[in-house]
Amino acid sequence: MKEGLPGYRGIALKVLSDAGVRVEDMVRIRRGSEVYEGILFQRSQYDDDEHIVIKLKNGYNVGIRVTPNLVVERLGEGAKAAFTPPQPPKMNPSLPKVSILSTGGTIASRVDYRTGAVTPAFSARDLYSIIPELSDIALIETQEIFSIFSEDMGPEHWKTLAKVIAHHIEAGAKGIVVAHGTDTMGYTAAALSFALQNLPVPVILVGAQRSSDRPSSDAALNLLSAVKAATDLPIAEVLVAMHADPSDETVLLHRGVKVRKCHTSRRDAFKSINAHPMAAIKDGEVKILTEEYRRRQGGQILELKPDFDERAGLLKFHPGFNPDIIEYLVDKGYRGIILEGTGLGHVSKRCHPSLKRASSEGVFLGMTSQCLWGRVNMNVYYTGRDLQAIGIVPLEDMLPETALVKLMWALAQAKEPEALKRLMLTNIAGEISSKTSFRWGAP
Amino acid sequence: MKEGLPGYRGIALKVLSDAGVRVEDMVRIRRGSEVYEGILFQRSQYDDDEHIVIKLKNGYNVGIRVTPNLVVERLGEGAKAAFTPPQPPKMNPSLPKVSILSTGGTIASRVDYRTGAVTPAFSARDLYSIIPELSDIALIETQEIFSIFSEDMGPEHWKTLAKVIAHHIEAGAKGIVVAHGTDTMGYTAAALSFALQNLPVPVILVGAQRSSDRPSSDAALNLLSAVKAATDLPIAEVLVAMHADPSDETVLLHRGVKVRKCHTSRRDAFKSINAHPMAAIKDGEVKILTEEYRRRQGGQILELKPDFDERAGLLKFHPGFNPDIIEYLVDKGYRGIILEGTGLGHVSKRCHPSLKRASSEGVFLGMTSQCLWGRVNMNVYYTGRDLQAIGIVPLEDMLPETALVKLMWALAQAKEPEALKRLMLTNIAGEISSKTSFRWGAP
Repeated sequence: MKEGLPGYRGIALKVLSDAGVRVEDMVRIRRGSEVYEGILFQRSQYDDDEHIVIKLKNGYNVGIRVTPNLVVERLGEGAKAAFTPPQPPKMNPSLPKVSILSTGGTIASRVDYRTGAVTPAFSARDLYSIIPELSDIALIETQEIFSIFSEDMGPEHWKTLAKVIAHHIEAGAKGIVVAHGTDTMGYTAAALSFALQNLPVPVILVGAQRSSDRPSSDAALNLLSAVKAATDLPIAEVLVAMHADPSDETVLLHRGVKVRKCHTSRRDAFKSINAHPMAAIKDGEVKILTEEYRRRQGGQILELKPDFDERAGLLKFHPGFNPDIIEYLVDKGYRGIILEGTGLGHVSKRCHPSLKRASSEGVFLGMTSQCLWGRVNMNVYYTGRDLQAIGIVPLEDMLPETALVKLMWALAQAKEPEALKRLMLTNIAGEISSKTSFRWGAP
Repeated sequence: MKEGLPGYRGIALKVLSDAGVRVEDMVRIRRGSEVYEGILFQRSQYDDDEHIVIKLKNGYNVGIRVTPNLVVERLGEGAKAAFTPPQPPKMNPSLPKVSILSTGGTIASRVDYRTGAVTPAFSARDLYSIIPELSDIALIETQEIFSIFSEDMGPEHWKTLAKVIAHHIEAGAKGIVVAHGTDTMGYTAAALSFALQNLPVPVILVGAQRSSDRPSSDAALNLLSAVKAATDLPIAEVLVAMHADPSDETVLLHRGVKVRKCHTSRRDAFKSINAHPMAAIKDGEVKILTEEYRRRQGGQILELKPDFDERAGLLKFHPGFNPDIIEYLVDKGYRGIILEGTGLGHVSKRCHPSLKRASSEGVFLGMTSQCLWGRVNMNVYYTGRDLQAIGIVPLEDMLPETALVKLMWALAQAKEPEALKRLMLTNIAGEISSKTSFRWGAP
């Protein structure tokens, strides 16, 4: 590996080395009539040896294939200007107080100039600095709680996050914004919905599908809308704020217990399931889309119930499913299992003996559907009735993910099986809908 | 329990007993100005003691609450007429030969007159008899292969089904229709897509969300459309035929490896994921919706590869996921695991040691996304690159359920890890899309 050109090999290394450039230099690359100018990136062991990667001035990265007619020219040092940290804007103390708490994720990420990969890099303060319009909406306080990708968030992080949010609310925040990775944002939103009861103000989780330092990022609109909602919204619930559609115009607010990431990469990946979105924000205007919500009122005292018990499992049933896994979880001391059954809430007869054993040993068994949309109904077929006789509890129209999070939370609240079952079937935060009517079209 | 009134207790038992009626009698029940006539149902141990259930003449069941003003009157014996088996229609030998194979499920179910629950009862021949219009479309041969609910279908049933289909094709069928429960119809469709290669004719799986003896059933339109497709369709693939929308007008044909049940109860529960539906049938007219399909051609010889290896697991990752489950599957001798990761294909760092062990012991590890829509991409974040370095294989835009079925199938074909990996990444039946463009709206 050539000094100053880490990750480059073969033909790409030769061309760059011959031109006397180093990673982080500003370079010009010509290939026939095409001209690219930008900062040279480091590459990684996973990359091929045929491409040179630069970050263009417009923020995009481009990989340029090395062909015989390629010409590389060094323009100077490039990285320093790009790394200059942004400065936060001036604050207006007459605006309502909103706290932005950062946990990591793409919304708090930037493209790494050396590797071309995306890494968590921005604190809440940085986000504020990148989007100075935020200071026109609210008097913003920022706190970086974690700086991790959301797949590494767990129940212990939910607990810390809930406590910090409670602290900010007690300190007078009129709304809370949580910048979060999108991967598990739905799970965290559900967790906070159960942990933060009798909420006096809205708690808005917000993410981005593209990192904040790219011109194509959805971070700015999502964050602006989230702060607007935290400031103005009459709904005192835990909500998720993300793009309504691919255009960078409208943000939807979804109920934390009813939302799910339904696309790996689209900006409008988050969908309300078995529920309407709660509100939309377009051109800075808030439109409420439902009449059923918890209203923001003065004088309410937050009830903090931040504990979760991890001895809860989620098993997705499938043909060929081996019920030994159920026995394994029982042996390991799990106190509850959420089943993702088929259709209205079914698993094969082959599972019955293991489920009977789990039930007889006091393990809570809750049924949800891998269909995701709709409601489990274990009275239509005799097989569903048999499962209920074993002790399996149909969890209405709860999302499997929400049911799992609720089980972890409920296990920390209720010690007796009957109390646990009652709590699981009590609608705490809108996770059980009273009606099945909702918007449903072709996904 | 009173003789002749099984399942009835308390006030309901008293009212019926006083009126001298028995289960399966035709009865008239008045409550104020309301009048109901129908066949009295048995009830079960799971039911309350305050309702009388009858099947109305229009096919619906109704539960009537016992109030002081309720009057019950016996009209006579009722059940015999309802149980008279239907007679198949006359056949036209000049029409193309189509085989209808039944496996069970709601499409082959009827409401049980004694319990009010739905049970599998119809054979393929019965279905044919209920919908005599089928004899205008094709010369139909029927065979009952199983009579089970689809949650009890497993790899061993897929194998039998594939062999029977191959037999009917060899015997000259111009198309195959498989009546199947909707719960696991997507899994079976994927299994047949891999087991039946080089198909000369279409294989159409068809189900219903309401049992065939109810006037609101979707069975008739689905089955008529499936037989039409089996007869006429130029697409020689495994497809699923189900309602396009709640109206009883249009049926969509979905590619077997790209379809999923996305609602517990709606008629239009089945959706193509990361793919367009292949065709639509309305008013008996077939409309092809894609240009990319395998054409029906003469002279092709079916390749039957019906074996599946059940030593394959599906694990859905979630916050708090305990990687010991991975170790457990390795200890149990599993040869492959499909991970349903978050977002672009992630699991927590906490899983890395267990995944490393699994990989080093030759267990295939494939990554899909619990988002369901979109494509995994493990090059965007360094965490995804780390997982690839461990040996986890990103499975493009394959559905998790399809990936699991394909793994079971591939394990039976390829013995060496490299051959297995190659097979999993080879597009066999359209399970891997070359493009990401597809219809996507608000579910």
